[in-house]
Amino acid sequence: MSNDHDLVLERTLDAPIDLVWKAYTDPEHLKQWFSPKPYEISECELDLRPGGIFRIRMVGPDGFDTGHGNAGCVLEVVEGQKLSWTSALGPGYRPAEMGEGCESFPMTAIITFADAGNGKTAYKAVALHKNAADMETHEKMGFQDGWGTTAKQLAEYARTLSVNA
Amino acid sequence: MSNDHDLVLERTLDAPIDLVWKAYTDPEHLKQWFSPKPYEISECELDLRPGGIFRIRMVGPDGFDTGHGNAGCVLEVVEGQKLSWTSALGPGYRPAEMGEGCESFPMTAIITFADAGNGKTAYKAVALHKNAADMETHEKMGFQDGWGTTAKQLAEYARTLSVNA
Repeated sequence: MSNDHDLVLERTLDAPIDLVWKAYTDPEHLKQWFSPKPYEISECELDLRPGGIFRIRMVGPDGFDTGHGNAGCVLEVVEGQKLSWTSALGPGYRPAEMGEGCESFPMTAIITFADAGNGKTAYKAVALHKNAADMETHEKMGFQDGWGTTAKQLAEYARTLSVNA
Repeated sequence: MSNDHDLVLERTLDAPIDLVWKAYTDPEHLKQWFSPKPYEISECELDLRPGGIFRIRMVGPDGFDTGHGNAGCVLEVVEGQKLSWTSALGPGYRPAEMGEGCESFPMTAIITFADAGNGKTAYKAVALHKNAADMETHEKMGFQDGWGTTAKQLAEYARTLSVNA
């Protein structure tokens, strides 16, 4: 493992951890904030168990469309604390075909959540790449802006949820 | 999941399941049978937990050598029942660089064990590929012969072990 192939985003979200977890792990919620506006998620599948599918189809006002969205694979689920998935594998751990654009290189995302007190959540997203070239490609695509924007959207959306709903 | 991208090997091994599991999951044991003779495993690392490393270096009398052996990743461990790993990811779930020869395409192996009674073990190995081309490449490399031979070696080696050793 070499950290020079990782991209990292850390934010303190102004929303309680149980709502952030809910917003992240329910596909109907995730659709609402996962793409930086004006891009939208038109389809989302998330089967929250190791080996389960994670698939999003992103579309944009400029005609941008990831097609069906490559099906990725959930790797780790630690309730309220951690969610990892990869695009290197599809559901059932089958090696995945790479797609185009932001789906052209394999990536593993490791997302962790911690209670930061006062109704806030410490949020950390690490994107693992196989080499420096893929990491740089992802960085130039606007990783920090894109994932930073969605982190804000996640907090805003999570605040609209209630714990038991 | 499409079964037309899988290769499957099923055998009833003449060895008890606890010894088969031990022979499969301890890297010192695994080295003894995992490559079809006269090929040998010169190095083996297996960290038996999801996200742990699985790496073998195979060498042969004809100068065949996989180099350092690409580091793969353990995906599932169900004690005595199931072991899954992939070469599409390395340890810690980082997307893996592909290598050469038998390491040139990503593969996920799903190995299951069941007690077949009378001291025998039902053994099933499924190799998942991303597409038909990779599956055919693997098949032409001699999947059935190679994995069939190692299944025999696994049973022979497991019988030399004792449960508590």
